[in-house]
Amino acid sequence: MDPDAVARAFVEHYYSTFDANRAGLANLYQDGSMLTFEGQKIQGSQNIVAKLTGLPFQQCKHNITTVDCQPSGPAGGMLVFVSGSLQLAGEQHALKFSQMFHLMPTPQGSFFVLNDIFRLNYA
Amino acid sequence: MDPDAVARAFVEHYYSTFDANRAGLANLYQDGSMLTFEGQKIQGSQNIVAKLTGLPFQQCKHNITTVDCQPSGPAGGMLVFVSGSLQLAGEQHALKFSQMFHLMPTPQGSFFVLNDIFRLNYA
Repeated sequence: MDPDAVARAFVEHYYSTFDANRAGLANLYQDGSMLTFEGQKIQGSQNIVAKLTGLPFQQCKHNITTVDCQPSGPAGGMLVFVSGSLQLAGEQHALKFSQMFHLMPTPQGSFFVLNDIFRLNYA
Repeated sequence: MDPDAVARAFVEHYYSTFDANRAGLANLYQDGSMLTFEGQKIQGSQNIVAKLTGLPFQQCKHNITTVDCQPSGPAGGMLVFVSGSLQLAGEQHALKFSQMFHLMPTPQGSFFVLNDIFRLNYA
């Protein structure tokens, strides 16, 4: 499977899980994972999922505009850069965002998210 | 020097060099470096700088809105995520962009750019 296909599959899995069952994202992070969400740094799967499930909206839908990926070095990691928009239930306008993920391979042949940086695109 | 200060110093150096002397960016990349510019993948310092110096504008000025950074793993790298705007000479409106850099340490105690992904933020 080529890296771009892996990146796209990850992105689709990540945002469909976010939109359907945010707590299910816990499996994608580990204790050493870090999320920077709008400038706030949060470490560890449990804290990251607490942050995401505690965001002040319930239903949402991510729409992906672009996905770029690159290998991140000799450790077999992959950088994934996403732009898209986030539609909140009951809101007229979607919020544009940019987000990057640093994926690292697991012994099971899958990936986990080591680094995650999220920013809304201010108009 | 704390990582956030290193990231900010890199970002200021990168964009001031871009705006004053784009060819000078060659020192920040190596042969294994990769740039994805608006979806186009370019490898190696020489090709990357050829792409950047060949962009269809001469004078420009980057303005930085946010800088986020995280350590990228055991190899001592650093991920830097930037949002900002790019003002081209003679254009009324600045272009918003998001860009990420994966910096890796050099034996000389400095950093080079291993990964670079750039996207304009579409309105």
